Amino acid sequence: MKIESLNNPHVKEWCKLKEKKYRDQEGLFLIEGEHLILEASKKGVVKKILSSSIEVDADFYVTEAIMKKISSQKSIPKRIAVCEKLKEEKIKNRLLVLDAIQDPGNLGTMIRSAVAFGFTDIILSLDTVDLYNEKTIRASEGMLFHINFVKIDLNDFLKQIKKDYQILATDVKSGKKISRIVKKENVALLIGNEGQGLKEELKKQATDFVKIPMQENCESLNAGVAAGILMYEMSDLNA
Amino acid sequence: MKIESLNNPHVKEWCKLKEKKYRDQEGLFLIEGEHLILEASKKGVVKKILSSSIEVDADFYVTEAIMKKISSQKSIPKRIAVCEKLKEEKIKNRLLVLDAIQDPGNLGTMIRSAVAFGFTDIILSLDTVDLYNEKTIRASEGMLFHINFVKIDLNDFLKQIKKDYQILATDVKSGKKISRIVKKENVALLIGNEGQGLKEELKKQATDFVKIPMQENCESLNAGVAAGILMYEMSDLNA
Repeated sequence: MKIESLNNPHVKEWCKLKEKKYRDQEGLFLIEGEHLILEASKKGVVKKILSSSIEVDADFYVTEAIMKKISSQKSIPKRIAVCEKLKEEKIKNRLLVLDAIQDPGNLGTMIRSAVAFGFTDIILSLDTVDLYNEKTIRASEGMLFHINFVKIDLNDFLKQIKKDYQILATDVKSGKKISRIVKKENVALLIGNEGQGLKEELKKQATDFVKIPMQENCESLNAGVAAGILMYEMSDLNA
Repeated sequence: MKIESLNNPHVKEWCKLKEKKYRDQEGLFLIEGEHLILEASKKGVVKKILSSSIEVDADFYVTEAIMKKISSQKSIPKRIAVCEKLKEEKIKNRLLVLDAIQDPGNLGTMIRSAVAFGFTDIILSLDTVDLYNEKTIRASEGMLFHINFVKIDLNDFLKQIKKDYQILATDVKSGKKISRIVKKENVALLIGNEGQGLKEELKKQATDFVKIPMQENCESLNAGVAAGILMYEMSDLNA
C-alpha cells in the first residue's frame, strides 16, 4: 500500500506511538533500522513495516517526509516497524530488578549487559522509565528481544520471591565484595534509581548486601556501569 | 560586582564558553553547581564565581535571566564558576587510553570509573570529544578533578611508552579473559570508539589482548560499561 499524505490516518496513528500514552493504549511501539527489525522479526512481534524505498520489503510505502515525521532519528532509517509489545512470561532463575531507573539510555544499557551476562528476566518497577521509549530501545541494541520483562510493584514482587531467591542489594558501607559472594541458583540483583538509590522498603527485602570496591575519593559509579560490573561478577562465564 | 544587563561584555564572554572553540581559545571552561565548584576549588582552578543569590559567596552577582542564559541546565544552579583548563602532568603507571570516544556522557562515565578503580591518567586521542563539554563534566560527577589528562596523537604516544608499559586492547575472538591476565606495574588500557572500535594501527601497538566473556547472542557491551568492567578487573582493590 502506498501513502503520500502526511495527513493520512495511518501516519497520524504511527506518529502517536512516539508517546508513551498511545503506546500503552494501543499495545504497540516503533522500532527503526534493519538490525532492530531483524531481532524483532525473530521474536515474531513485527506487525507492519514502512519504508520510503520501493527496493525493500514493506507493507506500506510512504514518502520521505512521512518517514521523517515518524522517525526519532536525525537521518531517516531505511525501514520503520510497528511492533506488538512483548508478552510477560514466567520468570526463571536470574533476575535483574530495577527500581525507578529514570534515564532511558541507562535502562537500554542495562538490558544489553543483562543479556550479555546470562540474566533471564528484568523486573521493572511501576515508576521505571518506559521500556518502549525509543532511546531505551536504541541503547539496548536489540537485546530487549532476548530477555523477559515483567512490570510490577517491586515490594509485592520481592515478598513473593523471597523464600526461593537470593536477593542482592548494594551497600557501599556494609556490603561484601561482590567477587566474594557465593551465588545461589536463583538470584535477583536489585538496582536503585540513579540519584536516590534503592528505596528503603526494598532494601529491607535483600538477603545479601554487596559492594564494588572503589578508591575513597570516588563516591559512586554510573548506575549502568555499576549494574554491568555486578552482573559480570554474577555471570557463570568468568570461571 | 553586580551585573544586570544581558548585553554586558562579561556575560557575552561567559556564554561563549559553552562552545569548544572559545574554550580552546581562552583556556577556560564553565562548571555549574556546588559539588563541582567544591571539587574545582580543591584543585585550585576556579577563576570567577557567578551567582544570582546575594546569600552566597561570588565574584559577580547577576540576574536570574543572566544565569539562565549562561547555564546549560534546565533549572539554574545556585552558582556557576569559570575555571582554568587543567594542566597536563607527567604520566604515572595506570593509564586509560581513549581513541575517538564521541559521546560526552560516555567520556564522563569513563572518567568516573577510572578514578574509582585507581587509574592515574587518561590519555585522549585528538579526535575524542571535548573534555570540557558540559555533559562530560556533569557525567564525570566532579571526578575529572582527580585524575591527570593528556591529549595527544595516540600512535606516537603508544610507540613512546611501549617498552615500559603493558598495553591491553580488547579482542572478542582471540582475547584472554580479563580476569586471567597478569597485570604489570605499568599498564595502559586501550578503549576504542563506540561504533567503530579501536583503530587498526593502534591495535597493532597492543602487547596483550583481552576480552569480557559474554553470552553468544550479545555481540558487545556499551563502551562505558565495557571500560568499567575492564578497569574494575585491573583494580588492586578486588583481591
